[in-house]
Amino acid sequence: MVVVISDKDEMRKWSRAMRSQGKLIGLVPTMGFLHAGHLSLVKEARNHSHVVAVSIYVNPGQFSPNEDLSTYPSDFHGDIQKLMSVPGGVDVVFHPQNLYDYGIGGDRDVAIQDRVVSCVENNALGHETWVRVEKLDKGLCGKSRPVFFRGVATVVTKLFNIVDPDVAVFGKKDYQQWRVIQRMVRDLDFSIKVIGAEVTRDNDGLAMSSRNVHLSPEQREKALSINKSLLRAKSAAADGQVNCEKLRNSVIQCITDAGGRIDYAEIVDQNSLEKVEWIKGPVVFCVAAWFGKVRLIDNMEINL
Amino acid sequence: MVVVISDKDEMRKWSRAMRSQGKLIGLVPTMGFLHAGHLSLVKEARNHSHVVAVSIYVNPGQFSPNEDLSTYPSDFHGDIQKLMSVPGGVDVVFHPQNLYDYGIGGDRDVAIQDRVVSCVENNALGHETWVRVEKLDKGLCGKSRPVFFRGVATVVTKLFNIVDPDVAVFGKKDYQQWRVIQRMVRDLDFSIKVIGAEVTRDNDGLAMSSRNVHLSPEQREKALSINKSLLRAKSAAADGQVNCEKLRNSVIQCITDAGGRIDYAEIVDQNSLEKVEWIKGPVVFCVAAWFGKVRLIDNMEINL
Repeated sequence: MVVVISDKDEMRKWSRAMRSQGKLIGLVPTMGFLHAGHLSLVKEARNHSHVVAVSIYVNPGQFSPNEDLSTYPSDFHGDIQKLMSVPGGVDVVFHPQNLYDYGIGGDRDVAIQDRVVSCVENNALGHETWVRVEKLDKGLCGKSRPVFFRGVATVVTKLFNIVDPDVAVFGKKDYQQWRVIQRMVRDLDFSIKVIGAEVTRDNDGLAMSSRNVHLSPEQREKALSINKSLLRAKSAAADGQVNCEKLRNSVIQCITDAGGRIDYAEIVDQNSLEKVEWIKGPVVFCVAAWFGKVRLIDNMEINL
Repeated sequence: MVVVISDKDEMRKWSRAMRSQGKLIGLVPTMGFLHAGHLSLVKEARNHSHVVAVSIYVNPGQFSPNEDLSTYPSDFHGDIQKLMSVPGGVDVVFHPQNLYDYGIGGDRDVAIQDRVVSCVENNALGHETWVRVEKLDKGLCGKSRPVFFRGVATVVTKLFNIVDPDVAVFGKKDYQQWRVIQRMVRDLDFSIKVIGAEVTRDNDGLAMSSRNVHLSPEQREKALSINKSLLRAKSAAADGQVNCEKLRNSVIQCITDAGGRIDYAEIVDQNSLEKVEWIKGPVVFCVAAWFGKVRLIDNMEINL
């Protein structure tokens, strides 16, 4: 059994009831089409809280009009089945229709401004408040997806305010997203512990992602070059190769040879996400690459 | 007696204790140097909650480096006396030292970036998350104070997250600020009722402001032109003058004749704060003007 709530006020009511019983609330924000990676986040949340809420909401605010919002996969029924299969299950699924619909808030028009930068502007009834983590959101994925982290930080703020969790779990597969949320929580004084959970991989090493479903078997085979080359780079670093240009070149070469189109391949400081030339402290090697019409991201922490 | 708390965690603890007792918490955010206007906000908060918290914090985040942060008046001892004089008093005063000091958060340098746009960048230990209400914050005060509302929205988010109030009271003297906060609360799904309290005026009609203390007696006399001309405009509108250009011109003329330097004098829709040419619905006439080195704001709602 799992409780599904789609109304904001009902969600708050649930949280308040839990809180008044002294229960710690864990939140796992997702966009649905769940896989074993998400389920590992749920398990992690269980380890840090008494009750676990999973939100399922494809957030239009983090997609540009030219991105894949309309083809983002979904399977609500399957998601619920999977969540019920987790040992301990989940206590509530928050599944809102539209987090940007304020109903009576329409004392101003649904103004499609001169520059529509995110999908939310099309059906937002005047939503105009955005949260930005202005340094961490600039590099890596922020370069090719300029509204992405603004959208993520904003919807996570909304979810935090609605669900009011004590703990929130994010996957380190979306490394930059995890760091952005951590920084946001610190800077805006949310009283929430943010936990980063390790990347979950299929047996062949491919990092799990809802978007993997769009890969043809052939593309999927080629996409393994990401993880393989990152593992090789990690091993080379352990063997003394600390020149980031060399490490980057070998990863770029390997992925390109396999037919992937590199968006970025960068070695950055684990906290500041600033580019590093020589590995001196803990870094993370972050990659984004296209295989056909599918953009995949992956990363590897290197702690020498 | 009043409890003064300066530590964030202690503040949270207080709020949680109140909440667990089923008490509704009212918050009045202030920058100190309190006057009767602030005390009227406290009374308003009392009407909507069981316990009242007043925050006293001069927020560097809303000042540009060229603004009057360093000369902003303060009198903490006097403030406490005044708060104790309010019938019912206040239950707690939150008086933090520096809301942007994250202590151990310094895994990155205190980076003074190429463009220092707010006073927070000088002592923020890497604070980089900002909340913006992107349409409402553009006009009126937003034009001459480009970081002001970003700073206000951000610090109010922080205060909301620390104090966790059910109700927050803002003065309608800062009309745009009140609307910005209302919109932010809606857009970010804060579960907080935002109340706008009427402008409090001295006997001579001057809107109360902490900055009035910087006016010479002569400047103060001249500054009365703001309220006088606004009252005259309201009366003219009631008598059928709905042409905003005419109304604006007479206010600008009156204030300029008195020796004031107009920053803006605009008639805008009460909700969208968009400029209006002809009064057809509820509007607010907003004015900002300099008298010597003091910038004063005032406004008048016109409900025909």
